[in-house]
Amino acid sequence: MSKANSKTSSRYPQSLDLKHGKVEMAHGAGGKAMAQLIEQLFVEAFDNPMLRAQNDQASLDLSLAGVPFERIVMATDSHVISPIFFPGGDIGALSVHGTVNDVVLSGAKALYLSAGFILEEGYPLADLKRIVESMAAAAREAEVAIVTGDTKVVEKGSGDGVFINTTGVGVLPSGLSLSADQVRVGDKVLVSGTLGDHGVAIMSLRENLTFETTIESDSQSLHSLTAMMVEQVPEIRCMRDPTRGGLAATLNEIAGQAGVGIELDEEQIPVRPQVAAACEFLGLDPLYVANEGKLVAFCPPQQADQLLALMREHPQGQEAAIVGEVIEDPNAFVQLRTSFGGVRMVDWISGEQLPRIC
Amino acid sequence: MSKANSKTSSRYPQSLDLKHGKVEMAHGAGGKAMAQLIEQLFVEAFDNPMLRAQNDQASLDLSLAGVPFERIVMATDSHVISPIFFPGGDIGALSVHGTVNDVVLSGAKALYLSAGFILEEGYPLADLKRIVESMAAAAREAEVAIVTGDTKVVEKGSGDGVFINTTGVGVLPSGLSLSADQVRVGDKVLVSGTLGDHGVAIMSLRENLTFETTIESDSQSLHSLTAMMVEQVPEIRCMRDPTRGGLAATLNEIAGQAGVGIELDEEQIPVRPQVAAACEFLGLDPLYVANEGKLVAFCPPQQADQLLALMREHPQGQEAAIVGEVIEDPNAFVQLRTSFGGVRMVDWISGEQLPRIC
Repeated sequence: MSKANSKTSSRYPQSLDLKHGKVEMAHGAGGKAMAQLIEQLFVEAFDNPMLRAQNDQASLDLSLAGVPFERIVMATDSHVISPIFFPGGDIGALSVHGTVNDVVLSGAKALYLSAGFILEEGYPLADLKRIVESMAAAAREAEVAIVTGDTKVVEKGSGDGVFINTTGVGVLPSGLSLSADQVRVGDKVLVSGTLGDHGVAIMSLRENLTFETTIESDSQSLHSLTAMMVEQVPEIRCMRDPTRGGLAATLNEIAGQAGVGIELDEEQIPVRPQVAAACEFLGLDPLYVANEGKLVAFCPPQQADQLLALMREHPQGQEAAIVGEVIEDPNAFVQLRTSFGGVRMVDWISGEQLPRIC
Repeated sequence: MSKANSKTSSRYPQSLDLKHGKVEMAHGAGGKAMAQLIEQLFVEAFDNPMLRAQNDQASLDLSLAGVPFERIVMATDSHVISPIFFPGGDIGALSVHGTVNDVVLSGAKALYLSAGFILEEGYPLADLKRIVESMAAAAREAEVAIVTGDTKVVEKGSGDGVFINTTGVGVLPSGLSLSADQVRVGDKVLVSGTLGDHGVAIMSLRENLTFETTIESDSQSLHSLTAMMVEQVPEIRCMRDPTRGGLAATLNEIAGQAGVGIELDEEQIPVRPQVAAACEFLGLDPLYVANEGKLVAFCPPQQADQLLALMREHPQGQEAAIVGEVIEDPNAFVQLRTSFGGVRMVDWISGEQLPRIC
């Protein structure tokens, strides 16, 4: 406990019961109970001087990034995943991974996160503590500081446990400008590893499916992988994480933005046999299932083999593969060459597939 | 409609019914329905090149601020106000005002906002459109761009209409460093106008109270007022907006952070007669009621009269007042000299006062 904490702890009439207590409306009302929750749970876990200053905003030094930059990047994600705890992660770690990945996939170095909590009255404080500690650990691992936050409480029945918004800021090294509209015909499409792990882990849990070994979410921060990639292969056009809607949605978005077609090779797309089996059982297509720790990258054909080799050297890219290429197509269709030699369209899903997957 | 929109609108099989449609789970699922909602509602309303690039993050040029700076500031707020529409505003405008104010009260120039929506299945799209257009208008007025966003949908009964997180980034002009711990004994405490308007407007609506004239929320962005204040009186120690928990909570926070006491003069505290009457009726104390367009500022006694005069010249500071001063007090108590000559403690509220007020 820091001195600041012990000095002010006498201000609170009751101790915060992080073992058996529950979230109360007072924890969001701006009074002592909220201040106590913030100080004894959030500041304690996320500890850093910017947060500890406890102004209503954080004042941030971008030069700490140690890289020359002209632009910053900003990304936001609200997390409403259900269930809140799952094999391979929880909403806390996920809320850090999701936003860090959105920042670093631009080629930026992620520096700072904000955290906004919407808590449902009655939620166990012990579970909230687990979530917050998981966020703190994920932030340390991703080398970002959680510098400012907000806590709201809604009545029982007006929320669902815990929703977390994280917003991230990073700096973009000078000279880098990755964007979907830079993708060109002939570019190769790479993925960093197996697809569908996150979505299938969540769906298996919801459906009470059990397998010989538990399918775990791939939820992880890709900051070191992306940093290495853009440093070694600055020709990369664009990177993105295939989250909601899976690889299919991500590729359709990029194809539309770049005004090109994409042809995938089914045989090259890495999917764990167990995930493939679960998908078959659940009636899902791994191409449409969310990932939370994978990336898709587009690069000119000349650099593709070098990039693939580099990615495979990284622990997060051991199963990386070149899965397709960019073709000319005014309709901006994504197509799949199947293992049987046919070609089928990989359209966007039109309706609901996997609700509350992140 | 821009060319980009008309080019891609044929991608959607159905038109988005912004008059009679409702939020569906598919609007958060990462497929076509989500893309359509983002493109035809959010991007349309918030229109700017950074958002229109529709990458998963926005790439931002801080030099556009036109001021020399060393640090950026970042602030976040999730908004869960109920009811969503109220006299003087709605959750959309409020979500811009709240975060812009947290940024500019540091003395910073606010530049960019992110917007994260958590929508409840079944919420009317027409109401969502009103909210989004209100956000867009508030952002234009505050001279900030909404540059990146996120949309999640939860099942009916797992949310409550619309929750909005906004996170703001601004640049802090070189040389400025306002912070609660810079407050000193002898400093004067100023407020920019009448207290309690927002909270009383919301509570009156909830309780179905009617008065001769409707009490309106003071929800507004204070960017031009704060810019003028720090430019003309750089000696200002600290500014903050007395939102949840009202002036009482804000002053107790600052007193604790600075390790000083604060003495208020009840006669100087501006409260509309109608708000005072409603507070009496509702059993509320205006000192504890949330404001969403007011600030409290601390400055050395030598600059107090100059600062007060300046604030009164600004449309948002016409009813500004010097309401108290900083005194020595190792207990960091906030006290009030009453109109009757007595002194009473202005403690933080310990329990719930006004739930979901912002």
